[in-house]
Amino acid sequence: MNPLFHDHHSSEARMVLLTADEQALRLGRIRAALGDTAEAVVLRDNADIYYVCGRVFSGYVYIPADAALLPVYFVRRPNHLLGEDVEAIRKPEEIPARLEARGLPLPKSVALELGSVSYDGVERLRHVFEGAALANATPVMRKARAVKTAFEQELLRTSGAKHTRVYEIIPRLYREGMTDIELQIEIERASRLQGCLGQFRVAGDDMELFMGNVLTGDNADTPSPYDFAMGGAGLDPSIPVGANGSLIEPHKPVMVDVNGNYTGYMTDMTRCYSDGEPDARVRKANECSRAICAAIAEAGRPGTEAKALYDLAETMAREAGLKEYFMGCRSHAGFVGHGVGIEVNEAPVLAPRSRDVLEAGNVIAVEPKFVLPGYGAVGIENTYIVRADGAMERITCAPEDIVSLK
Amino acid sequence: MNPLFHDHHSSEARMVLLTADEQALRLGRIRAALGDTAEAVVLRDNADIYYVCGRVFSGYVYIPADAALLPVYFVRRPNHLLGEDVEAIRKPEEIPARLEARGLPLPKSVALELGSVSYDGVERLRHVFEGAALANATPVMRKARAVKTAFEQELLRTSGAKHTRVYEIIPRLYREGMTDIELQIEIERASRLQGCLGQFRVAGDDMELFMGNVLTGDNADTPSPYDFAMGGAGLDPSIPVGANGSLIEPHKPVMVDVNGNYTGYMTDMTRCYSDGEPDARVRKANECSRAICAAIAEAGRPGTEAKALYDLAETMAREAGLKEYFMGCRSHAGFVGHGVGIEVNEAPVLAPRSRDVLEAGNVIAVEPKFVLPGYGAVGIENTYIVRADGAMERITCAPEDIVSLK
Repeated sequence: MNPLFHDHHSSEARMVLLTADEQALRLGRIRAALGDTAEAVVLRDNADIYYVCGRVFSGYVYIPADAALLPVYFVRRPNHLLGEDVEAIRKPEEIPARLEARGLPLPKSVALELGSVSYDGVERLRHVFEGAALANATPVMRKARAVKTAFEQELLRTSGAKHTRVYEIIPRLYREGMTDIELQIEIERASRLQGCLGQFRVAGDDMELFMGNVLTGDNADTPSPYDFAMGGAGLDPSIPVGANGSLIEPHKPVMVDVNGNYTGYMTDMTRCYSDGEPDARVRKANECSRAICAAIAEAGRPGTEAKALYDLAETMAREAGLKEYFMGCRSHAGFVGHGVGIEVNEAPVLAPRSRDVLEAGNVIAVEPKFVLPGYGAVGIENTYIVRADGAMERITCAPEDIVSLK
Repeated sequence: MNPLFHDHHSSEARMVLLTADEQALRLGRIRAALGDTAEAVVLRDNADIYYVCGRVFSGYVYIPADAALLPVYFVRRPNHLLGEDVEAIRKPEEIPARLEARGLPLPKSVALELGSVSYDGVERLRHVFEGAALANATPVMRKARAVKTAFEQELLRTSGAKHTRVYEIIPRLYREGMTDIELQIEIERASRLQGCLGQFRVAGDDMELFMGNVLTGDNADTPSPYDFAMGGAGLDPSIPVGANGSLIEPHKPVMVDVNGNYTGYMTDMTRCYSDGEPDARVRKANECSRAICAAIAEAGRPGTEAKALYDLAETMAREAGLKEYFMGCRSHAGFVGHGVGIEVNEAPVLAPRSRDVLEAGNVIAVEPKFVLPGYGAVGIENTYIVRADGAMERITCAPEDIVSLK
C-alpha cells in the first residue's frame, strides 16, 4: 500500500463508513432541510449517497423523515456489503415489499432528486411508490450539504494541504518552450502522485469537468459552454474548455486552476505564474484579486448575504478600473464564488441575485479573476471555511503573488 | 500550437463543425430512428449535441421530424457562435416565440432525452412545449449513434492508433517496486502527451469514469458499484473502483484498461503485462481471452445477434475450464462487449438477454476477461468496427500476448 492513499480495506465490506455520530449529524441536517415536505427521502445520486454513507454504491438510500427510524440501504452493486440495514436488490420494484417486511409503512409522500436523476429514473421510482406525493430532494440535499460537519471540514483541510503542496512544486515542473497543455499534464501527474483521486463531481445536466485548467494568453478569453469562471477553447470541440496548446510566452501570465480532490472533498485554488517579470497591468490585476479575496474573507461571516460579497468584489474591481475585465472579457461569468465539497458547485453562490446567506460550516471558493486582452487570465482563487467565530479560514495556502517560473 | 492536437481555432465561431453532408447523414439516422413518434426532437445532452453539431454548447438543438426543415440551435453559452440557424437565448422559455418568428409550427409532440436529462430539466421543457405529447429521445439517439458514419469511423481509427502507441510504451513506464496507481499515473501522463482529451463520457445515472484502470493481484476481485467488466477497491470509498495502491509483484499479471479518447470518439483496449514470466494458468487465461476475441471477430457481422456472441464467449470460457472466473469471480459482469463512440457504453451490448443485432457501422469493444484468485485480472479487450463486407476491423492493435515489463 502506498501510504499516501487511504487504507479503507480493513472496513471494505461495512455498509456505512461514517461513525454513528457523524451519520446522525448528516441525517439530522437532511431531515431539518426536508421539514414536513415528505415522509421519506430516496437518494440515488452518487454524491448524495456518499454524503449519507461515506461510500458510493449503486442503489438507493431510503431515509424515513421520522428520526426514530434508521435508513435502509437498497444495494444493487457491489454485492458484498454487510449490515443489518442492507437489502440486496436487483431492481427498485423490490423496495416496497422489503420495507413492509421490515415493518416500515410505505410513505404517502416521497422526496426524490429531481435535479440530478434522469426523468426515466424518477418516473420509475414514482411507480415504485405508487400514489405517493412527489417532493424534490435536490434542494434538500443542497441545503444539507452546504454546511459541512467538523469531520467534513477536516477532510477539506486535508485536501487543501495536499493541493497546496502540488502548487508549491509547479515552478519545478515548468520548462521553457512548454505549451499550456504540456504544463497542465505535469501538474495533473504531480496531483495524482500527491494522492489526487482524479474524478471531480459536478452538479448540473450540462456540466463536465476534467481535473482543471491551465490558461495562458488570448485563449483565456474564448467563451466556453460551461458555467465556470474562465473559458478557453480546449483541445477539441468535443470538450471545449481550457488549454488549447498555446505556447507559454515569456512575461505572460499562466493561470493554473487545477482542482484538489484528495479525500472525496475538493478544494479550489488558482494561482498565476510567469516566466519572467509580468507587466505592471498584470501585477495590478493580481493584486486586485488578492485584495478582493482578503476583503471577502474579512466581510464574510455567518449571516452575511452572499450577494453582498459579490457586490463588494464588483465594486473593488470597478474602483481599480478593471470592471470590464472582471470575470472575463468577451463573456463574463455571473458569480465570484461558490460552495465546494463533494461537488465543485455547491451552495452558497456569491452572485448578484443570490438569495444565499452565509452559515457557519459553509466552505466557499472565492475566485475574483480578470481577463486582460493581450495578456490573458489573471487572479487567484482560495477556498475558505466560514467559521462560527466569524473568521473565514483559508485552507488553500500557496503564496498568492505571481510566482516566477524561472 | 502543439501539432498533436486538433486545430479547431480557424473555425472557432462556426455553429456546426460538421460538413453539410456529414450532418445530413446524422440527421437522417435520427429521423429514421424517430419514425413518427414525435414532430420534433429537442436535445440538450452534451453527447447528443456533439453528435449533431460536432461541438458541445450549453443549450438545445431543435430538430423538426420533417426532413425538409433545418435544425435550430438555441444557445445559452458560449455567446460567440455564428450561423443563421443560431438563436441566442437565456432560458428555454424563449424557444416557442423564436420558432414562431421563424415560421416553424409548434410541435404537437416532442421527443426529449428522458434517460439522460434530469426530471426537472424535462419538466421545464414540457412546460415550454405546453400541450405537446411526450416521446423519449434517449432510445432514438442511442439507435442513431450506434451506427457510425464513415467520418466517425475515421475518428475512431485515429483514437485507436494513438491509443495503441500509448500501450506500446507501457513497458518503458514501469519501474520495479511500483504500485498499480503509480504505473497508472505514468500511463495517464503518456496518454495525455499523446493527445488524450482526458474526459470520458459515460451514459447512466450512476456511472462515473476517470481515465481507466490498472489492476493487479487480489484487488481485481473487489466488487465495485459501477457496471464495468472489472472492479477494484479504488483509492478511496468516494470513488470505489480500480487501482488501490497494491504493489506490482513479480510474475503477477497487471491488467491495463486505460481508455483512449483522442478525437471526441473513444476506443477501449485492455492488455496484460508482467514483471517476469507469468504462471501457466495466467497465460492460459490470456490465450482464452485472445481466442474469444478472435472467435467473436470471426462470427460477428451485420445481422449477427449480440447475445449469440455473448453465448459464444461464455461457451469458450466454460470449455477452457474458466467459467467460474469469467468476467469476475466474487461478482460477475453481465456482458462481454459493448458499443463505444462518443460515450463508453453505447449500443449494441453483447449480453445474454440483449436484443441487439449487429449492423454495419457498429463499433464494439469486446472484453472477455477473467479474475484468477491468487493471481488477479487476466485478458484483453479490443475495439472493432463491424464492416459492411462482413469483417470485424480491429482498431486497437497493440500486441495481444502478455507483455514483459522487464
